[in-house]
Amino acid sequence: MNLIGAAIAVAGAAIGAALGSSRVISKALESIARQPEMKGELQTLMYIGVGLVEAIPIMGVVIAFILVFQ
Amino acid sequence: MNLIGAAIAVAGAAIGAALGSSRVISKALESIARQPEMKGELQTLMYIGVGLVEAIPIMGVVIAFILVFQ
Amino acid sequence: MNLIGAAIAVAGAAIGAALGSSRVISKALESIARQPEMKGELQTLMYIGVGLVEAIPIMGVVIAFILVFQ
Amino acid sequence: MNLIGAAIAVAGAAIGAALGSSRVISKALESIARQPEMKGELQTLMYIGVGLVEAIPIMGVVIAFILVFQ
Amino acid sequence: MNLIGAAIAVAGAAIGAALGSSRVISKALESIARQPEMKGELQTLMYIGVGLVEAIPIMGVVIAFILVFQ
Amino acid sequence: MNLIGAAIAVAGAAIGAALGSSRVISKALESIARQPEMKGELQTLMYIGVGLVEAIPIMGVVIAFILVFQ
Amino acid sequence: MNLIGAAIAVAGAAIGAALGSSRVISKALESIARQPEMKGELQTLMYIGVGLVEAIPIMGVVIAFILVFQ
Amino acid sequence: MNLIGAAIAVAGAAIGAALGSSRVISKALESIARQPEMKGELQTLMYIGVGLVEAIPIMGVVIAFILVFQ
Amino acid sequence: MNLIGAAIAVAGAAIGAALGSSRVISKALESIARQPEMKGELQTLMYIGVGLVEAIPIMGVVIAFILVFQ
Amino acid sequence: MNLIGAAIAVAGAAIGAALGSSRVISKALESIARQPEMKGELQTLMYIGVGLVEAIPIMGVVIAFILVFQ
Amino acid sequence: MNLIGAAIAVAGAAIGAALGSSRVISKALESIARQPEMKGELQTLMYIGVGLVEAIPIMGVVIAFILVFQ
Amino acid sequence: MNLIGAAIAVAGAAIGAALGSSRVISKALESIARQPEMKGELQTLMYIGVGLVEAIPIMGVVIAFILVFQ
Amino acid sequence: MNLIGAAIAVAGAAIGAALGSSRVISKALESIARQPEMKGELQTLMYIGVGLVEAIPIMGVVIAFILVFQ
Amino acid sequence: MNLIGAAIAVAGAAIGAALGSSRVISKALESIARQPEMKGELQTLMYIGVGLVEAIPIMGVVIAFILVFQ
Repeated sequence: MNLIGAAIAVAGAAIGAALGSSRVISKALESIARQPEMKGELQTLMYIGVGLVEAIPIMGVVIAFILVFQ
Repeated sequence: MNLIGAAIAVAGAAIGAALGSSRVISKALESIARQPEMKGELQTLMYIGVGLVEAIPIMGVVIAFILVFQ
Repeated sequence: MNLIGAAIAVAGAAIGAALGSSRVISKALESIARQPEMKGELQTLMYIGVGLVEAIPIMGVVIAFILVFQ
Repeated sequence: MNLIGAAIAVAGAAIGAALGSSRVISKALESIARQPEMKGELQTLMYIGVGLVEAIPIMGVVIAFILVFQ
Repeated sequence: MNLIGAAIAVAGAAIGAALGSSRVISKALESIARQPEMKGELQTLMYIGVGLVEAIPIMGVVIAFILVFQ
Repeated sequence: MNLIGAAIAVAGAAIGAALGSSRVISKALESIARQPEMKGELQTLMYIGVGLVEAIPIMGVVIAFILVFQ
Repeated sequence: MNLIGAAIAVAGAAIGAALGSSRVISKALESIARQPEMKGELQTLMYIGVGLVEAIPIMGVVIAFILVFQ
Repeated sequence: MNLIGAAIAVAGAAIGAALGSSRVISKALESIARQPEMKGELQTLMYIGVGLVEAIPIMGVVIAFILVFQ
Repeated sequence: MNLIGAAIAVAGAAIGAALGSSRVISKALESIARQPEMKGELQTLMYIGVGLVEAIPIMGVVIAFILVFQ
Repeated sequence: MNLIGAAIAVAGAAIGAALGSSRVISKALESIARQPEMKGELQTLMYIGVGLVEAIPIMGVVIAFILVFQ
Repeated sequence: MNLIGAAIAVAGAAIGAALGSSRVISKALESIARQPEMKGELQTLMYIGVGLVEAIPIMGVVIAFILVFQ
Repeated sequence: MNLIGAAIAVAGAAIGAALGSSRVISKALESIARQPEMKGELQTLMYIGVGLVEAIPIMGVVIAFILVFQ
Repeated sequence: MNLIGAAIAVAGAAIGAALGSSRVISKALESIARQPEMKGELQTLMYIGVGLVEAIPIMGVVIAFILVFQ
Repeated sequence: MNLIGAAIAVAGAAIGAALGSSRVISKALESIARQPEMKGELQTLMYIGVGLVEAIPIMGVVIAFILVFQ
């Protein structure tokens, strides 16, 4: 029962993280292409943003590993 | 039964937090790219906003850990 | 049975609160970026709005904790 | 059986109230940012509107508490 | 069995009423912000409209209370 | 079994009636805000329209009450 | 088993009739607000249209009553 | 088992017929409001169109009655 | 078991036929209202089109009758 | 078990064929209304297109008949 | 069990093929109506395209026949 | 159990391949209709693209055949 | 049980890969049709992009084959 | 039970990764086609972005392999 739980947790984390971070990155790509002189600042902000977005899904991966090796 | 509950809780938290915070961050990226002179204020507001958005999902992660180690 | 109930309650609360408050915050970010001279008032309104939005989901978290420690 | 019922009731109330009240608040934020001279009246209307929107979901929270402590 | 029924009834009523009345109120907010001289009439119409919208969901809350205390 | 049926009937009626009548009322609000001189006629039509929309959902409430007190 | 069937029939009828007739009525409201001189003809057509739309859902209500009192 | 079948048949027929015929009628209303001189022809076409749209759902009502009285 | 099958078949046929033929008819209404001089040709094409759209759903009705009287 | 299979097959075929062929026919109607001088060629293409679209759903009807009379 | 499998396979194939090929054909109709001088080339490409789109769904029909006559 | 698996695999492959390849082909048709002088290059790219899109679904068909003849 | 798992894995991989890679290829086709002088670079990027998109779904196919031949 | 879990995990990872990375790559293709002089920087950013997007889904693949060979 904990193995099917690990699968649900990691599947939800993967879908959420991929959809969320791709929205941030594609918006950053678009903004940099328009204003190349701000590349450094926007890139820094993009890395921070991806980190904030993926903070909760990584908890899902951690819980999935705990459920697998329990 | 509590292990499958932990998976549902953390999956819902991951999807909600990733979709919510990515919307705030991509909107902040777009606004900063348009008006670079307001970068400081918008960035501060963005950190506060992500914190407010992720307040409830972190409760979901906490409940998931309680369900796992119960 | 109460543990699976806690997971449903906190997952619904997390998805609802994240989607709702991110809509308020991104709209506030957009408005402040357009009219920086109204930053104070809009920011105050944003905090009140997030509080009003997250009032009901916090009830869901409370019920989830009651179901866990019952 | 009443515990799973409390979870369904509070999850539905949380999703409905968060989506509904965030729509009212973000529309109010947008209107105030456009016409700052009407801030008082729109803000009053916003509080009344959030109260009207959250009237039924609070019934859901009440029923959830009744189901929990029954 | 009647307790799970009460939860379904009040959850449907909460989602329907919140989505419906928020649409009326946000449309009223928008109209008043455009034409402030019609504030009185539109506000009266808004209260009547919210009452009409929430008439059926309140029946759902009544049935939910009957199912709980039966 | 009839209690769960009453919940389904009243939940469907609440969602349908709230979404349907809010569409009529918000369209009437918008039309009156544009052409205030037609307020009387449009308001009369709005009341008739809400009555026509909520005719079938009220049948759902009636059936739900019959199922509850049967 | 026939009671749960009555609930499904009347719920489907309520959702269908409310969504369908509200579309006709809101379109009629919009058209009358634009061309007030055609009010009589459009209103007549609106009543006929609502009658045609609600013809089949009323069959659903009839079948639901038959299932209840069988 | 045939009673639950009658409910599914009539619910599908009601939703399909209401959504389909309301689309035809609202389009006819819009066209007549734009070109009042073609009212007769468009109205005739509308009645034929509603008849064609509701031909199959009426079969669903017939089958539902057969299932009820079988 | 064949009665529930008849209900699924006729419900699918009703939803498909109503949505499909209403799209053809509303497009024909729109085209005729724009170009009244082509009314005859478009009307002929509309009847052929509705016949082609409803050819497969009528097979569903036939199979439903076979399943009922088997 | 084969009767419920026939219902699923014919319902899927009816929904797919009605949605697909109505898209082709409404597009053809629109194109002919714009360019009446190409009526013959577009009409021929429309018949071929409807035939190609309905080729696979007719297989579904065939399989449904095989499942019924097996 | 293989009969219900045949129904799922052919239903999925019918929905996929009808939606996919109707998109290709309606786009071809639109392009030919705009540029009649390219009719030959676009029509050839359309036949190839429909063949490529329906290649995989025909595999579904083949598997369905194998499951039926096994 | 492997027969129902084959049906799921081939249904998913058919829906995915039809929706994916029809998007590529309709985009190619549109581009060629606009720029007929690039027909050769775009057509070559279209064939490669359809091959790349249908590479994974063909794996689904292969696995479905293995499941059928196992 | 592993055979139904293989079907789920390969169906998810097929839908994901087809939708993802078709978006990349149709965007590449559109860009090349607009700027034919960049054909080489965009085509190279398209191949790399399709490879990156289909990297994870191919893992799904691999796992499906492992589940089949286990 | 762990085999069905591996299928769910890898299917979720495949759908999430394909949809997410295709959004980044198509946006990069579009930006490069508009501003060819920034090709190097945008391409580097695209590789980093795809890596960040696919970080969490690769965890899903890893967990799926662990579940298979456990």
